[in-house]
Amino acid sequence: MEDDLTGKLTVGHGGQSYQDSHAESGQKERQNQMVQEKAQQMTPETQFMATAISLATENVVSGRGGPFGAVVVRGGEVVATGINQVTTSNDPTAHAEVVAIRNACKVLGSFKLDDCVVYTSCEPCPMCLAAIYWARCKAVFYGNSAADAAKIGFDDQLFYEELKRSNADRELPMMQWMSQEAWESFSAWEKSPMRIEY
Amino acid sequence: MEDDLTGKLTVGHGGQSYQDSHAESGQKERQNQMVQEKAQQMTPETQFMATAISLATENVVSGRGGPFGAVVVRGGEVVATGINQVTTSNDPTAHAEVVAIRNACKVLGSFKLDDCVVYTSCEPCPMCLAAIYWARCKAVFYGNSAADAAKIGFDDQLFYEELKRSNADRELPMMQWMSQEAWESFSAWEKSPMRIEY
Repeated sequence: MEDDLTGKLTVGHGGQSYQDSHAESGQKERQNQMVQEKAQQMTPETQFMATAISLATENVVSGRGGPFGAVVVRGGEVVATGINQVTTSNDPTAHAEVVAIRNACKVLGSFKLDDCVVYTSCEPCPMCLAAIYWARCKAVFYGNSAADAAKIGFDDQLFYEELKRSNADRELPMMQWMSQEAWESFSAWEKSPMRIEY
Repeated sequence: MEDDLTGKLTVGHGGQSYQDSHAESGQKERQNQMVQEKAQQMTPETQFMATAISLATENVVSGRGGPFGAVVVRGGEVVATGINQVTTSNDPTAHAEVVAIRNACKVLGSFKLDDCVVYTSCEPCPMCLAAIYWARCKAVFYGNSAADAAKIGFDDQLFYEELKRSNADRELPMMQWMSQEAWESFSAWEKSPMRIEY
């Protein structure tokens, strides 16, 4: 199934090509339409989602963490799995998808998963979704929705709303400061012969 | 300085109270105004931002990773720092803020940093900002903006735009699937006597 997606996702093959695609809005619209048509044609494999759901349920039953499990798949094979470990590992970033991405990257020896699909028991929160973008994964299948998660007390939906707001409109105080000094780090990056882009 | 912020951020003290605050929009508006007034009164400490910027620049010069550094501060003391390690650790989630949050949680033996302030050399990407929300940090100071990061080739701004869109409008194909089966994990959570909320 994954092979059907190859080459389709410009966002999955580096930001530059995606940014280029913004240059012509007509082209972008056609591209979006093509992506969505392809998405509708996808036939997710039951076993991978069933694994993600089982991991989530077992995680609760064993008292290890929240009801979330994820599986990273490449070419019809499981590369790695992840479970929510926030409270047991004292790591607020140890959500199932983030853990699965970290594990998959270790297995593949790469910081990119651009030929991988994520199966997750719940719609990714903004942290996990952005991690999926950074890892350049090519598609996501999810079981429960963010709205479902809100029903049992998780803040996914709330954080999506917060992230949509401008910095000034968020409840979290955010302030830019020392921007002139901060540019020195970006300037160093621009000049560095050692930089590896990601 | 951090003490001035105590008790101000409902989002920093658990999602429930924040959700409750949405019940009355007038109350929420007043609360937002109060938060923003407080934010404008904050006087960030130069040394913490200077440290974050130095970490970012050193990270590039030493060839360890991207131009990003972060510092987690509590009660005027540095709890932990983080640098971008995406390419050297093969971990697309190893952004400076995420690394700093993980380190701070280890130091404090907690999955919450609700009395902590984050100083970061660049405006957090959506992954890092959501991690800051999950960790319940109470404020963020940043040097470079997401727009600045876009100028030197980083996708922060692009991913913010993607996250604002509905699932159907994103370039990343996302599809809900097996939602009925997935609810079993949430049902287990609702019934579990062992659950620790976060």
